[in-house]
Amino acid sequence: MARVVVDVMPKQAILDPQGRAVAGALERLGFGGIADVRQGKRFELEVDGELTEERLAELRRAAETLLANTVIEDFTVRVEHVTTQA
Amino acid sequence: MARVVVDVMPKQAILDPQGRAVAGALERLGFGGIADVRQGKRFELEVDGELTEERLAELRRAAETLLANTVIEDFTVRVEHVTTQA
Repeated sequence: MARVVVDVMPKQAILDPQGRAVAGALERLGFGGIADVRQGKRFELEVDGELTEERLAELRRAAETLLANTVIEDFTVRVEHVTTQA
Repeated sequence: MARVVVDVMPKQAILDPQGRAVAGALERLGFGGIADVRQGKRFELEVDGELTEERLAELRRAAETLLANTVIEDFTVRVEHVTTQA
């Protein structure tokens, strides 16, 4: 059992209206000094069994296929923790 | 200048319909062995100036006020990297 985290963020070259809205709201609420905000998605996948290299490659394909729109988004896949069984 | 990342995830006790939908879609696409998926948000804040303890506490308040709905979501605030100026 392992937890794999997939972070999906809008590409730097892409306008991020959600992030802009958050930055504006922070400013209006009195939280100044924040130059930029970008908003993306975080997926936590609980993966059964052993996390082999092949398994991780498959999860990367899954992220590319379903979780990120790679035309406008970048994604990273990382292992957060592995639970070993006794 | 520093990048601060705020991760916002649905609380464990809360049903996460987006995550369920993703888990179902992964299964249908042939990506098996994924026991659970939870979907949340990731915010990247580019913060001006020096990142003092007070500044970080202020950003935590900002996350609590604007970025997370603490009734149904948990959040974490962490510093991803700091750019020091020459």
